[in-house]
Amino acid sequence: MLAELKQLVVEANKELARAGLVIYTWGNASGILRDEGLVVIKPSGVPYEELTPDHMVVLDLEGSVVEGQLRPSSDTPTHLELYRRFPEVGGIVHTHSTWATIWAQARRPIPCLGTTHADYFYGEVPCTRPLSKEEVAEDYELNTGRVIGEVFQEKNYKHVPGVLVAEHAPFTWGKDPFEAVHNSVVLEQLAMMAYHTLALTGGVQPISEHVAQKHYMRKHGPDAYYGQR
Amino acid sequence: MLAELKQLVVEANKELARAGLVIYTWGNASGILRDEGLVVIKPSGVPYEELTPDHMVVLDLEGSVVEGQLRPSSDTPTHLELYRRFPEVGGIVHTHSTWATIWAQARRPIPCLGTTHADYFYGEVPCTRPLSKEEVAEDYELNTGRVIGEVFQEKNYKHVPGVLVAEHAPFTWGKDPFEAVHNSVVLEQLAMMAYHTLALTGGVQPISEHVAQKHYMRKHGPDAYYGQR
Amino acid sequence: MLAELKQLVVEANKELARAGLVIYTWGNASGILRDEGLVVIKPSGVPYEELTPDHMVVLDLEGSVVEGQLRPSSDTPTHLELYRRFPEVGGIVHTHSTWATIWAQARRPIPCLGTTHADYFYGEVPCTRPLSKEEVAEDYELNTGRVIGEVFQEKNYKHVPGVLVAEHAPFTWGKDPFEAVHNSVVLEQLAMMAYHTLALTGGVQPISEHVAQKHYMRKHGPDAYYGQR
Amino acid sequence: MLAELKQLVVEANKELARAGLVIYTWGNASGILRDEGLVVIKPSGVPYEELTPDHMVVLDLEGSVVEGQLRPSSDTPTHLELYRRFPEVGGIVHTHSTWATIWAQARRPIPCLGTTHADYFYGEVPCTRPLSKEEVAEDYELNTGRVIGEVFQEKNYKHVPGVLVAEHAPFTWGKDPFEAVHNSVVLEQLAMMAYHTLALTGGVQPISEHVAQKHYMRKHGPDAYYGQR
Repeated sequence: MLAELKQLVVEANKELARAGLVIYTWGNASGILRDEGLVVIKPSGVPYEELTPDHMVVLDLEGSVVEGQLRPSSDTPTHLELYRRFPEVGGIVHTHSTWATIWAQARRPIPCLGTTHADYFYGEVPCTRPLSKEEVAEDYELNTGRVIGEVFQEKNYKHVPGVLVAEHAPFTWGKDPFEAVHNSVVLEQLAMMAYHTLALTGGVQPISEHVAQKHYMRKHGPDAYYGQR
Repeated sequence: MLAELKQLVVEANKELARAGLVIYTWGNASGILRDEGLVVIKPSGVPYEELTPDHMVVLDLEGSVVEGQLRPSSDTPTHLELYRRFPEVGGIVHTHSTWATIWAQARRPIPCLGTTHADYFYGEVPCTRPLSKEEVAEDYELNTGRVIGEVFQEKNYKHVPGVLVAEHAPFTWGKDPFEAVHNSVVLEQLAMMAYHTLALTGGVQPISEHVAQKHYMRKHGPDAYYGQR
Repeated sequence: MLAELKQLVVEANKELARAGLVIYTWGNASGILRDEGLVVIKPSGVPYEELTPDHMVVLDLEGSVVEGQLRPSSDTPTHLELYRRFPEVGGIVHTHSTWATIWAQARRPIPCLGTTHADYFYGEVPCTRPLSKEEVAEDYELNTGRVIGEVFQEKNYKHVPGVLVAEHAPFTWGKDPFEAVHNSVVLEQLAMMAYHTLALTGGVQPISEHVAQKHYMRKHGPDAYYGQR
Repeated sequence: MLAELKQLVVEANKELARAGLVIYTWGNASGILRDEGLVVIKPSGVPYEELTPDHMVVLDLEGSVVEGQLRPSSDTPTHLELYRRFPEVGGIVHTHSTWATIWAQARRPIPCLGTTHADYFYGEVPCTRPLSKEEVAEDYELNTGRVIGEVFQEKNYKHVPGVLVAEHAPFTWGKDPFEAVHNSVVLEQLAMMAYHTLALTGGVQPISEHVAQKHYMRKHGPDAYYGQR
């Protein structure tokens, strides 16, 4: 199981590069074995094309390294905080993908402006508050996970599988690392289209609530009829 | 004939991905045998690269499945409604291509601002009204076809081979599935150029009517002289 | 010589597609043998990847076809008019490349905003006036060449190797077909950068005249020192 | 050592093309052997794909050619001035990459708007003043290096490894030619994201100082923990 997850996390990281979401070492994917409480994550600063399962770092949910010779991604404490808060998440991705990062730098949530968005995210993609000086000094990456958690006190992380960290960039998640990558690809496209829609309309004109609900539900609801059984 | 059309529809769907108009399963192409009244369409949620003729779903114009093991595209009732309303259409394409979707999300028709547009679409690319709550609840995909039909009560679908569905994305059509794909590629390019032209001029400055007519007619009129005989 | 030019024109047309300046059949390159007064041009509506020297159409400067089975590009009268007016031009290219077309649709010249522009075009890239109804009705493509000619009554076509046709798209030229393609690639890049520079500054802020002159002259002047001897 | 550096500079120049930062011959990379005081630079006007170590031009820091049959890049005096002023720089790159050039044409520094920027550049990417008529006439390329030097009288070139030359385009540097290329790729991405962030917020909203400092320091500070030891 752990060997399989390592392979999956390697492939998910490489997919980030293939999908054009990351250059150099600007992102990371991780996965979790819930029963064992073990998280597998990319090592810090290693190029995607060189990654093999042996490079992967395995940690428990408190952050102790269980396996692996390399330092884990510097964003590891954020991943761990999200795994602790979001019990049904199986994979997490962080990137600096262009358009999602533009919204994060603008510190604005991405409004739901069409059915492409509604097919994946129920409502806006939220943006955290900026971290305070104390939060940065004390434990920056852990507190990044905490400000994300604040946003989801009133939102269902299963219906909104991603977030923008203000001044920084997006995180997404899913039932496994590949769904988290998929949601990062989608988020990037939504962010790009929302930016230009907004410029064209001159102000936010959200999708009709009944259309958003229909699209989210025909794909994810109990009577979903999108895709194959 | 049906076997040929299945192959053609497979290729048209794959071409959508190759042309960069769709990612994942974000679009679908269909074709029709008018004499038999049979429509061939992509199955729902199946990736383009895996598609074979055996995956294709065959339906009659009332929506009964005649052949195929898989669920048809969830947008099938929209395709069928358009085939019923537009008797000379042989192929239909739906995508969420970036720039056409931006205009659809903005709920704005794409004005004709140059000869590239006029070579393919006579006048603006229209945008439907948003669907009402009742229309979404009652029969969402069928009613999507109906609001498209409303727009063409006063327009010739043969001179304007595409439309934007408000809050959603474009549909295009043609004499066969490949012409429908071709028109989707063109629409995407027109949408991108119109967006930026508008930003540069600060307001819509439509093409001169005599230039638009000249370009459309030199390509599609009775005395067309573009291309080979 | 004619055989060589046909091959060159084939390659120049294919290069337009490779450089991303054209899709489908949205552009054409031509070349001229000045001594023989023979122009070689792409046939109308034939895809770039299929082009061979045998497809090329050969015409004299008055537009009589001398060789070739296919119809020449519908823009041929424009090419011929430019060859007649610009005696040192050896190759001409017409495209609907995205950013140059955006400026043409906006009916605005592209101001010289930096040294990249000044390395190739001395001063702005001009834009023609729109054609009148009579000019379109009488001889559209010939009159397109004439309105370009008007612009160059007060400009040196050798220092400004391209133009925007209002409501339409760009033409570029050079000493041979490949230089004309090169100038189309450059124009597209200049057009893209000028658009965004303008949006960032909120108004045209032209390059300093002494910098523009320096860059144009270090590359094209009598004491040029850019490149190898 | 010189043979190795020539090979490295060839590869760095080719990498500029592969990374999409340059077309034709629109950029150049150089490197220096500090002990010997020898600079290796691309020849002027030679396409990247043809470059071999034998094409490289070797000069001393005063600009005398020591080895090589070809003319060095016309920007060589700028490179030399930067090597003289920045004693720990091992490689320099000049490009006309799209988005960095847009900011340079707008004559605006790129503000630090997010952590992607702060990971590489501590504070804004500065923009020089335009060169005067006299500076252009006297020794254009040398004076380009001098106005860059002016900007760094109050900035640490090691914490801000790049600059925009007003009306022109960017220069970047690093400990070796590849790091200089890396910084050019990063600068292009920062420039693109800053442009659109600014458009979305309607005005500069810089990153919090404590976040910028944290990101720069976790990667480049004495206690850096990004990457592997």
